[in-house]
Amino acid sequence: MKGSVGELGEFGLIRELTARISDTPAVRLGPGDDAAVIATPDRRVVASTDILLEGRHFRRDWSTAYDVGRKAAAQNLADIAAMGAVPTAILLGLVVPAELPVTWPTELMDGIHDECQVAGAGVAGGDVVRGDAITVSITALGDLRDREPVTRSGARPGDLLAVTGWLGWSAAGFTVLSRGFRSPRAFVEAHRRPEPPYHAGPAAAALGATAMTDVSDGLIADLGHIAHSSGVRIDIHAESLDVPAQMSDIGHAVGVDPLQWVLTGGEDHAIVATFPADTKLPARWRVIGQVLPARGSVRPQVTVDGAPWERDGGWDHFGSGG
Amino acid sequence: MKGSVGELGEFGLIRELTARISDTPAVRLGPGDDAAVIATPDRRVVASTDILLEGRHFRRDWSTAYDVGRKAAAQNLADIAAMGAVPTAILLGLVVPAELPVTWPTELMDGIHDECQVAGAGVAGGDVVRGDAITVSITALGDLRDREPVTRSGARPGDLLAVTGWLGWSAAGFTVLSRGFRSPRAFVEAHRRPEPPYHAGPAAAALGATAMTDVSDGLIADLGHIAHSSGVRIDIHAESLDVPAQMSDIGHAVGVDPLQWVLTGGEDHAIVATFPADTKLPARWRVIGQVLPARGSVRPQVTVDGAPWERDGGWDHFGSGG
Repeated sequence: MKGSVGELGEFGLIRELTARISDTPAVRLGPGDDAAVIATPDRRVVASTDILLEGRHFRRDWSTAYDVGRKAAAQNLADIAAMGAVPTAILLGLVVPAELPVTWPTELMDGIHDECQVAGAGVAGGDVVRGDAITVSITALGDLRDREPVTRSGARPGDLLAVTGWLGWSAAGFTVLSRGFRSPRAFVEAHRRPEPPYHAGPAAAALGATAMTDVSDGLIADLGHIAHSSGVRIDIHAESLDVPAQMSDIGHAVGVDPLQWVLTGGEDHAIVATFPADTKLPARWRVIGQVLPARGSVRPQVTVDGAPWERDGGWDHFGSGG
Repeated sequence: MKGSVGELGEFGLIRELTARISDTPAVRLGPGDDAAVIATPDRRVVASTDILLEGRHFRRDWSTAYDVGRKAAAQNLADIAAMGAVPTAILLGLVVPAELPVTWPTELMDGIHDECQVAGAGVAGGDVVRGDAITVSITALGDLRDREPVTRSGARPGDLLAVTGWLGWSAAGFTVLSRGFRSPRAFVEAHRRPEPPYHAGPAAAALGATAMTDVSDGLIADLGHIAHSSGVRIDIHAESLDVPAQMSDIGHAVGVDPLQWVLTGGEDHAIVATFPADTKLPARWRVIGQVLPARGSVRPQVTVDGAPWERDGGWDHFGSGG
C-alpha cells in the first residue's frame, strides 16, 4: 500500500487496520461500535495497559513496524499471563504523524494481530489519532479460568524460585545493536521480538504458584517488586542461571559480564514465580533460587548468592524501584 | 505540590497518582501488580479506548488539568453507557514531559477519579511514560447486567428517535472560547467538562432501545453511524430540538445559527437512541425524530425535516464518515 497516513485519512486508516483483524471466540463484538464486548466466563477480567513511544521504547531504524507490533502486544499479554490468566483480547490506541507511510501502522497491526494469535487473544477495538510522535497504547484483557490471580505478594520463606522463558537475550541484542552490529541474529531477534511463554502463566497458577511476575525491567528489579510486596528476601543462585555459550562470547567481545544481562536485562518477558518447596515443576521451568525471611529493613531484599548484585551501577537503582 | 515530573521521577509520580485512587467494589485488585482484576458478573465485559492529545483534544490555556481529566474519563465512560452497560473501571495511560509541573498530572488524576465516581467506576491501573507531548489514553470497562449490548445496527423503520443529555453546549462554548471570551459560563463550562447522562444508557437498554450511541462527533455525524449500520434513514425534527434562549443569543452575537451547534456540535456526550414506537420514555428523554426506510443509496441517510442539513459546509463531511 502506498501513500501517507495523512493522504489516506483517519477513517481510511481505521478501515485498513480493522481489515487485518480476525475473529476470535472471546471477542463477542469487535471494532465499529461505541465499545467492544469480550467474554469473561470467570466473572472477573484481568486488565493491563502500557504505552510505548518511538525513541524511548522502540526505534524505527532498529525494528520494523511489524516487530514493534509484536513487541507491544507481547509486553501487555505477558502481564496478563503473569497474573495466571489466559489472554483474551487487546485494545489499541495509536498516535500517528500525518506524513507516516500507511504501511507502518498496517504492518504494526499485522504484528499485533500475529502476537495476539500466539497468545490466543483477539483485537477487540481501538482508537487512531493524528499527532507528532508515534505512540502505541495497548490494553490487554484476560480470563482467570476460576483460579485466583497470582499477585506479587504471596511469596513465603521456604518457597522455591523458578523461571521459564528467556533472560538477558533482549539486553544482549540491545548491546549488539547499540554498537552498530546486526548479529548474532538470535539476540538481535530476541530484542526485536520477545517470545513470552504465555502458557506458563496459567500453568504456574494451576501448579500453586504463590507469587508471579513477568521479567520486563530485569530479573533483579522485578523480583524486587515481589520481595517488597511479599515482605521477603529472594536469593538468586547465579550458578543455576542459564548463560548460553554464545552470550558469553558476545559478553567477552564487548566487555560485559553476561550475567549482567541475565540478571538485569529486561524485555524478554520470561515468567518468574515462587512455588511451595515441594512443587514438581514441568521440564521447562528452571529453579534459580529461593525465598528467605526478610532481613529487617536491610536493602536490597534481592540478593545473588547471598550478596547484593553491585556490578555496573550497583543495586541502588533497583532498590529505589521497590 | 511543587516541582516537575522530571524531578519527582516516574515511581514518585505513580505513587502520587495511585494515592488519589479510592476503592470501588468492582475493582478487585487495583494498581501495583502486573495487571488489575475487575469484577464482570455478567460474564462479558464492555471495553472502549480513546487517546487525547494536547493541542488536538485539549488546550492547557482553556482547560485545567482537572477538567481535562473529567473530560477524558467522561468520553470513555459515555461509550460504555452508550452500549447499555454500567461503567465499572478505567485504566489510564499517560505521557508527560519531564518539565511539566507535577500538579498537572495529579490534578488530571483528581478529575479522572471524580468523573469515575459520578459514573460509579474505579481507576484500576495504568502506565506513566515520559515523552514530549501530553497524551492521555483511557480504556473504560463496563458490565452489561445480563442485558444484550445495544449496538448501532438495530434501528428499524418506524422506531422513534430520542435523546437525553446536552446537545450543542460544548460547541457553543468552544465558539465563545475561540473568539477570546470566557462567558457565558454555562457553555464554557459545558465545553470544559461534559456531563454525560451515564444512567440513561443502561436505562435505555432496559426500555428496549434498538440502537444507541453517545454524541461525541455531533448529532448528525453520530446518527450517520446508526443509519449506516442499521441500513435505515433517520429524520430529525428540527422543531423538537431544545435550543435554549441563551444559546440563541450567543448565536446571534457571533453570527452562527444555534441549530448548527445542536445538530453538529460534539463532545457533550448526550445519549441518543432509537426505540420501538410504542415505548413510554421517561421525562428526561426528548423525542426528536424517527427512523425511516433507507432511500436506496441516496446520501445522506440522516436528514433534518426530510432534507439534508447543508449549512456551514454541508453534509458531505458527515456522509463520508458513515
